[in-house]
Amino acid sequence: MKIISGGVTAAKGFKASGIRCGIKYKNKDLGLIFSKVPCAACGVFTQNKVKAAPVRVSQKHLRNNQAQAIIVNSGNANCCTGKQGIDDARKICQSLSQSLRVRTQNVLVASTGIIGKRLPLEKIKAAISNLAKKASSRSSLACAQAIMTTDTHPKQSAVKIEIGKTKVTIGGIAKGAGMISPNMATMLAFLTTDAAIDKVRLKAALKQAVSSSFNLITVEGDTSTNDMVLVLANGLAKNRAMSTADFEVFQEALNFVCSTLAKMIVKDAEGATKFVKIHVEEAKDISQAKRVAFKVANSPLVKTAIFGENPNWGRVAASAGCADKDIKEQSLSIYLGPIKVMQKGLALAANQQRLRQILQKDEIQIRLKLGLGKTQVEIFTCDLSDRYVKINAEY
Amino acid sequence: MKIISGGVTAAKGFKASGIRCGIKYKNKDLGLIFSKVPCAACGVFTQNKVKAAPVRVSQKHLRNNQAQAIIVNSGNANCCTGKQGIDDARKICQSLSQSLRVRTQNVLVASTGIIGKRLPLEKIKAAISNLAKKASSRSSLACAQAIMTTDTHPKQSAVKIEIGKTKVTIGGIAKGAGMISPNMATMLAFLTTDAAIDKVRLKAALKQAVSSSFNLITVEGDTSTNDMVLVLANGLAKNRAMSTADFEVFQEALNFVCSTLAKMIVKDAEGATKFVKIHVEEAKDISQAKRVAFKVANSPLVKTAIFGENPNWGRVAASAGCADKDIKEQSLSIYLGPIKVMQKGLALAANQQRLRQILQKDEIQIRLKLGLGKTQVEIFTCDLSDRYVKINAEY
Repeated sequence: MKIISGGVTAAKGFKASGIRCGIKYKNKDLGLIFSKVPCAACGVFTQNKVKAAPVRVSQKHLRNNQAQAIIVNSGNANCCTGKQGIDDARKICQSLSQSLRVRTQNVLVASTGIIGKRLPLEKIKAAISNLAKKASSRSSLACAQAIMTTDTHPKQSAVKIEIGKTKVTIGGIAKGAGMISPNMATMLAFLTTDAAIDKVRLKAALKQAVSSSFNLITVEGDTSTNDMVLVLANGLAKNRAMSTADFEVFQEALNFVCSTLAKMIVKDAEGATKFVKIHVEEAKDISQAKRVAFKVANSPLVKTAIFGENPNWGRVAASAGCADKDIKEQSLSIYLGPIKVMQKGLALAANQQRLRQILQKDEIQIRLKLGLGKTQVEIFTCDLSDRYVKINAEY
Repeated sequence: MKIISGGVTAAKGFKASGIRCGIKYKNKDLGLIFSKVPCAACGVFTQNKVKAAPVRVSQKHLRNNQAQAIIVNSGNANCCTGKQGIDDARKICQSLSQSLRVRTQNVLVASTGIIGKRLPLEKIKAAISNLAKKASSRSSLACAQAIMTTDTHPKQSAVKIEIGKTKVTIGGIAKGAGMISPNMATMLAFLTTDAAIDKVRLKAALKQAVSSSFNLITVEGDTSTNDMVLVLANGLAKNRAMSTADFEVFQEALNFVCSTLAKMIVKDAEGATKFVKIHVEEAKDISQAKRVAFKVANSPLVKTAIFGENPNWGRVAASAGCADKDIKEQSLSIYLGPIKVMQKGLALAANQQRLRQILQKDEIQIRLKLGLGKTQVEIFTCDLSDRYVKINAEY
């Protein structure tokens, strides 16, 4: 696997564009990803019970696991907008399908932004022909910019692998910033590949990649109404039918792209000053491991202590202690970076100066050994800063 | 029921004191509550699996539901301190029992403060005779001050009721500030009454009072290692054996004191600028109602929007939508104050100016109608401000 530059247009046959149509008062707000041939396609969607219209429409359009274009806007979530919202999302797909001369059913739609306001449909429709016209294989970055909300920079990742002797490319773009939590919180990610891969395998690969990347990050534990990860595979690399080993290579590359984008999202989370790895070991099973990891990761007390570079690990212990009914104080050990601060429920005399140095770094690892089994998980989060409050008080 | 001034010494036969023994670098840090006769006593304790030593010792001392004194320190939680911590907590009880000439088993102990450091036992022991000497029926406030951590003011409440023709008093003190969540988060509350009431009823009354007060408040969803609510009933009012109707009067008064203290805790939460009531109606049962209410109350996105006086109710919808698997978007309605902003999943055109005015108030009510049943609950929380982050980054 070779890391290359670029995003959704790195793979053969994909074009993208990003423009401003006026949903937001400034910056790009409308993006397009387009394959010159129909693709095998699938998606993972928010598990929130309040689902935005584009989520519902894209889920429907993906029933046959085929798609050729994705249109996405930022600045308005088209959520809690009822039948009108569904109708607006459909009209956007129709309008784009006419411009691109593809089937409406093959257009997917995504939105991110404020909830509860109708989309400015006319502005979007008026911009679509320009959006289509600007599509090029060099405009992945423009599209990555168009999906940003409180993100401070666009996020792209791409890799090249070989299937047999054939070069295959996978690339993607993402946006995150706030409301990031497992099971598709306010984040969008679009992946494209020129791999020839059947729908069943593509689905399995996406599910696995998401569960080991986007579903292992959290900013504050809220899950959004609009999130989706979509993948389009157009087959233009013309690789051989994938053997099991080939599929593993593909899976690994897809995992890498998703995981790179997921980490970018955490690092660029609203107000974040630290990248924090929460590593839970010796759990009885994966759900317990995740429960503890996410409880610690989402604790405002833990997050503010990290922001303050304050080695107040008691908050980690308290947080773990209320994460799961089977936690045992007498078997719980905690490490800040490489230093063990609690051994089976008992505080150890740690060098406070060393602990402070560990917390002064940009990347911090907190490890918890539960002493209850053999399962482990590592998830990623960030600290909670005064700037997070400021951004979210004003947004 | 008549609201009166005072706290834990309002009822007959109780004395209290609060002094500085040097655990904290300034301010009072050691408190005492003492009844001249043994009391019926019971407690509700943290459900965190990591429990501080004083929690374990007090639970043990309460096995016979009798007690005569409570000693409490702030500045050090005596948590994650292993056998040494248990031993220290016991020695404090012993030392106080000698000063007061009561049985060690009848002394309860509580601590709040930093986790993972040994208590300065010698400082505490050296201060105990002075603490006992200073006990008076006018020093409830000093005791309320001694248990403060990041609280900005002491918290007291007391009421008088009549059982038959006999006046009975119930009073209490509490501390809160941060890490407040249902099921006894970092908060301490001590209640005293001169009511003659049997242990079984006292237990039932405390359980009910806590579930409708301290367990309905949340600051950030973290549950602490040290929390407890204790009640001592010394019988000195010499009221008649309580009839069912008498018990209801007692229960109502105890609920009132607990609820007053609980609201004081939320209003004085770290950095709080708003008192927020989250009212969930039409839930299928109480656990669903609470699940939704607490998810909304603990959402950093909802809390920061309230701090910013920003009527971004979409965050309330998003938060409710991921609180419970049975939420139905099509039956979910949301009100900010008296104004309906979402009707069965659909945003309503609300006057933004009016919504901003509602959010500019110090007290804000958010109502959610789930449309799934007939159960309701109201819980209390606060906003999330930049000062919360500052306080918790530094503490």
